[in-house]
Amino acid sequence: MFFASDNSGPVPAQVLAALAEANQGYAMGYGADALMDEVRQRIRDLFEAPEAVVHLVTSGTAANVLALSSICQPFQTIFCSSVAHIHEDECNAPEFYTGGAKLTLVPGDDIITPEALIATIEGEGNRGVHGPARGPVSLTNVTEMGNLYSVGQIAALAKIAKGYGLPVHLDGARFANAVVALGCTPAEMTWKAGVDVVSFGGTKNGLMGVEAVIFFNPDHAASFEHRRKRGGHLLSKHRYLSAQMAAYLRDDLWRDLAARANANMARVAGALRTNNQVRFLNEPRANMLFVEWPRAWHQRALGGGAMYHLWGGTLEGEADAPLTCRLVADWSMTDQAIDQFTQLVLP
Amino acid sequence: MFFASDNSGPVPAQVLAALAEANQGYAMGYGADALMDEVRQRIRDLFEAPEAVVHLVTSGTAANVLALSSICQPFQTIFCSSVAHIHEDECNAPEFYTGGAKLTLVPGDDIITPEALIATIEGEGNRGVHGPARGPVSLTNVTEMGNLYSVGQIAALAKIAKGYGLPVHLDGARFANAVVALGCTPAEMTWKAGVDVVSFGGTKNGLMGVEAVIFFNPDHAASFEHRRKRGGHLLSKHRYLSAQMAAYLRDDLWRDLAARANANMARVAGALRTNNQVRFLNEPRANMLFVEWPRAWHQRALGGGAMYHLWGGTLEGEADAPLTCRLVADWSMTDQAIDQFTQLVLP
Amino acid sequence: MFFASDNSGPVPAQVLAALAEANQGYAMGYGADALMDEVRQRIRDLFEAPEAVVHLVTSGTAANVLALSSICQPFQTIFCSSVAHIHEDECNAPEFYTGGAKLTLVPGDDIITPEALIATIEGEGNRGVHGPARGPVSLTNVTEMGNLYSVGQIAALAKIAKGYGLPVHLDGARFANAVVALGCTPAEMTWKAGVDVVSFGGTKNGLMGVEAVIFFNPDHAASFEHRRKRGGHLLSKHRYLSAQMAAYLRDDLWRDLAARANANMARVAGALRTNNQVRFLNEPRANMLFVEWPRAWHQRALGGGAMYHLWGGTLEGEADAPLTCRLVADWSMTDQAIDQFTQLVLP
Amino acid sequence: MFFASDNSGPVPAQVLAALAEANQGYAMGYGADALMDEVRQRIRDLFEAPEAVVHLVTSGTAANVLALSSICQPFQTIFCSSVAHIHEDECNAPEFYTGGAKLTLVPGDDIITPEALIATIEGEGNRGVHGPARGPVSLTNVTEMGNLYSVGQIAALAKIAKGYGLPVHLDGARFANAVVALGCTPAEMTWKAGVDVVSFGGTKNGLMGVEAVIFFNPDHAASFEHRRKRGGHLLSKHRYLSAQMAAYLRDDLWRDLAARANANMARVAGALRTNNQVRFLNEPRANMLFVEWPRAWHQRALGGGAMYHLWGGTLEGEADAPLTCRLVADWSMTDQAIDQFTQLVLP
Repeated sequence: MFFASDNSGPVPAQVLAALAEANQGYAMGYGADALMDEVRQRIRDLFEAPEAVVHLVTSGTAANVLALSSICQPFQTIFCSSVAHIHEDECNAPEFYTGGAKLTLVPGDDIITPEALIATIEGEGNRGVHGPARGPVSLTNVTEMGNLYSVGQIAALAKIAKGYGLPVHLDGARFANAVVALGCTPAEMTWKAGVDVVSFGGTKNGLMGVEAVIFFNPDHAASFEHRRKRGGHLLSKHRYLSAQMAAYLRDDLWRDLAARANANMARVAGALRTNNQVRFLNEPRANMLFVEWPRAWHQRALGGGAMYHLWGGTLEGEADAPLTCRLVADWSMTDQAIDQFTQLVLP
Repeated sequence: MFFASDNSGPVPAQVLAALAEANQGYAMGYGADALMDEVRQRIRDLFEAPEAVVHLVTSGTAANVLALSSICQPFQTIFCSSVAHIHEDECNAPEFYTGGAKLTLVPGDDIITPEALIATIEGEGNRGVHGPARGPVSLTNVTEMGNLYSVGQIAALAKIAKGYGLPVHLDGARFANAVVALGCTPAEMTWKAGVDVVSFGGTKNGLMGVEAVIFFNPDHAASFEHRRKRGGHLLSKHRYLSAQMAAYLRDDLWRDLAARANANMARVAGALRTNNQVRFLNEPRANMLFVEWPRAWHQRALGGGAMYHLWGGTLEGEADAPLTCRLVADWSMTDQAIDQFTQLVLP
Repeated sequence: MFFASDNSGPVPAQVLAALAEANQGYAMGYGADALMDEVRQRIRDLFEAPEAVVHLVTSGTAANVLALSSICQPFQTIFCSSVAHIHEDECNAPEFYTGGAKLTLVPGDDIITPEALIATIEGEGNRGVHGPARGPVSLTNVTEMGNLYSVGQIAALAKIAKGYGLPVHLDGARFANAVVALGCTPAEMTWKAGVDVVSFGGTKNGLMGVEAVIFFNPDHAASFEHRRKRGGHLLSKHRYLSAQMAAYLRDDLWRDLAARANANMARVAGALRTNNQVRFLNEPRANMLFVEWPRAWHQRALGGGAMYHLWGGTLEGEADAPLTCRLVADWSMTDQAIDQFTQLVLP
Repeated sequence: MFFASDNSGPVPAQVLAALAEANQGYAMGYGADALMDEVRQRIRDLFEAPEAVVHLVTSGTAANVLALSSICQPFQTIFCSSVAHIHEDECNAPEFYTGGAKLTLVPGDDIITPEALIATIEGEGNRGVHGPARGPVSLTNVTEMGNLYSVGQIAALAKIAKGYGLPVHLDGARFANAVVALGCTPAEMTWKAGVDVVSFGGTKNGLMGVEAVIFFNPDHAASFEHRRKRGGHLLSKHRYLSAQMAAYLRDDLWRDLAARANANMARVAGALRTNNQVRFLNEPRANMLFVEWPRAWHQRALGGGAMYHLWGGTLEGEADAPLTCRLVADWSMTDQAIDQFTQLVLP
């Protein structure tokens, strides 16, 4: 009954098997391993992007900030949602890696609207050298609040960015969950919609700690390898990253894992919907649900062994008062555990 | 009829005279000049702070960011108003000098309220290492919108900061205008109210480009001199900064200049108040006024040679539609020029 | 016949087994996993340092620069050997993570002598704020040139550093190889000799990409966790790092692996010593050998499938002319492969 | 008898007069003043470079590091002399402003030779992403040790740099002294010889603290204004910098001042040459002399009121033992003071 995060579950057997298989003899280090050639080719094929530049790192933060610093000057500002992971959960890593760029938060709760983006871009970069210059626009799909941008929404925002000459980054920590939920192709959600560089997440979807950074415009990638090395993110025994990512890409494993995570969340949501004291704060099309129910239920659920995060409140308070929580499903959950959880929650 | 900024006027004769007087023979460089000893002593006396550490730099941005970087870690966030100069007008200098710290904007239009500060501090620094750690609180007096914190308001905000163990910085680009308007002492507006380090501005009040950074807690100043040097802000011929600041401090010149600037703005405001189509957006107790009147008046005034900044709009539009502008008075204005201006504006 | 690096071989079965064992159910992320508790305790026991602060990262560069930035100000300089990994092979990562500190190279080929260290420290930090302030001393054992500092040599250098109030860092990418070669305890080579923080390497000695940073003085570690996070080096699925390091520490695996690597190099060296055209540039007490032989031999060896790095020259040139190479042995080599190699090299 | 530095003397009357003249009414800030238009045009004319981009700052360190950071990536290394001001006397400012670039010291005492430059460039940037990438070459004329590169020498070094695709910076803190000593034009010593950007010093040659950065390739200047602002080096009352630089450029004042400084040093040297116990370490063609004489003479001179820096030793020691000192002449010295000094020194 672990719904605290999708980065707490195990990896699938294919990943362990791939590590064991890769563990033979000697391999060139630092990304020159043969498995990385496979990874690169599979990603280019998957994204229908034969020129894409592909690199691996071990954390989503590293992927995001190495991508962003490749396309952002230190005197620029990055436009992002006020709840973006790069703003809230990376401990100033974007500021650090860009050499001091600012993050400008687009007003709104989660999904960035075209109107808000335009107003925010207009509001920055118009003070000459006094304020920061305009820099990249960074989107996240699945969003931090469990919502989805449609392909059309991404394209509309990217078009606005391009109108100002600004590059577009996509934080795809839950890229697979989004693609599965939207029923689109990876290309449609990225370069065909105007995305220049994407953090293609593996960790939240079944890998031990592997993320790909994919540049659709090779010019943007010119400094990436030096930046990765000076960030301490170039692994000598790189084959163990490649092996995991290769396994992830083979036989659509990445898609199957995400489909399972999304389905697991749908099962949770389905059960919760049966009770009208449960209020949904987002439509859980992917694997995240923000949901509200009485505090007493939380006390029962958490006391009974369920694990998840409360959002904006604590267990102390009136038993009847509603309290929000965040539920995240990963690929590995069993129907039994899900049902056990929802039965524990509901009265 | 120049109301665009208080950094566009001339310096008083005393400052030129002090430069000429300092221009004799040889002087030790890099702040070891005898005039700097005078400056240090005068500031300690003025602020009733015999242990204060005092340094000079040539710009308000330099003063602010060297002060802040002395008391802020790169993984922290600085709390400031959403219109703070350090956020809006320093082109990421705080991010740069701190090595990548973030600025967290306290919601509100200008003046930070205790409630908003508490809520903002509570909202940051509670995510362990995922978000930034809490860092300094930075206030500005006179504010960017021409308002004044009372001594009591500063003390209340500083007390909140101290309750969280956070140091307090005061951006005093218009320090003199504030002290004169409040009728308080420099000590009352700073260390007695809980301020740890202040940017004591001279440039907007009659110097060519000299600001003092004053640390009331010498421990906070430990790294300042190295930081100033590596920022390129240690001037070899430092005596020319010292001479200006010494002149500024002698015979209460700093106070007289600010009193004149404030009085000049009062004269502007007095004339404008006679017309009820003029709407005041702030109470101009210091030397700044945000004021609204019909667009046609702006066309007449700006066309007639007045210089000031429009705020949030352009000259294009309906003649009757109100449009805001910012007026700033400096010490050097004549009554004649002021009256000429208000007569030009008013119908 | 792979002697190019000790980061190119496989990991031992215990490491794969530990990953599989750790891959059960859910685990708290970001270092809060139970396996990390085991790692911390084992390292404290191993180093006889019950207060030590222990953290894991995925690369030696990350370990070094996060350790150094925890004990170095941006306006300081780090003293290190002119061939130190932090200078030659980390692409400015120390400068980046420290926010712009300098590296001051102690003259000499590899091993830092007390005389050279004193002279270098004296030569820096004596120009007031004009030059950088003195910062940490960073040593490496096994050195980049395959040599060893004795415990006494480390203690002598650390004593000098401490005499200037400077902290001491040890780059232990090959920590295990050094301890085995010296026949000392981990405590003797570190805190008992005056080392404040050590990068305790696992990657070159059989892990996939896991290094521990160990602070013997908890005060030095105060900012480490924030720095790791903002560097993108805090892994969510941290248990997979913990599991590897735990396996490494159990049953003296770390020591056995290093002993095998050192013995493998001794076997190489023993065979090579039989031919007097082979000139040894270092005494290969650990697992690295710099050695010179005729260019024609290199052509034969490299042509025959051996892999290693030439040092300071290329294959082109006179067949008789001597040319240096670097040989590194890892734990996984077989006697057969070693003998095949030396037979291929020698005429 | 002040020979400690050329940044300790007064400014000429023309500079004070220019400040007074500029101190009339209102002027646009931040470099938009009319005097800056004059400065820009005069510099373009002087350097025969109608497209040059020209900006002013207040310190030589600021000029150097803003110039360098405009043409250097954070993962690159800057090639400079081991005694370069950017290495020895700027407290890590280059590392700071570039975001962490390294400085690679070209072996040798002062003047960089073509052979040493080639060897040093070859030695860096050949380790792929492991070491830093090659960045700008920075030269200094007059050098830190009082020597001069000929125009031909600069051209030879710049040609080497260009062969590797590297830009060339010239630290011209004593630009005027060099041009006068060499008898060349500013264009010949800069862009005609392959220099891309120059720090054109005014401070050491009679201004209060004004340096120009001149980019001959406008593309290199693209980020300069944002970098200057975020460094805190954009002065609001910019006219007071412009006024000084304009005065400096009018009527060849800059050249006259340098000619006087050089002549003053020649007078010192001429007197000292009469005694064969005086050993010259450099040929003082500009305004600096490194010279050795018995320690007893230093005791007499310094005790008698002369001011200069000892170099590599202290007053304590055998009276007969030779000890080096650095003498620097500025424009303002009188023949009388010079003769008084040399008579005091010589027995």
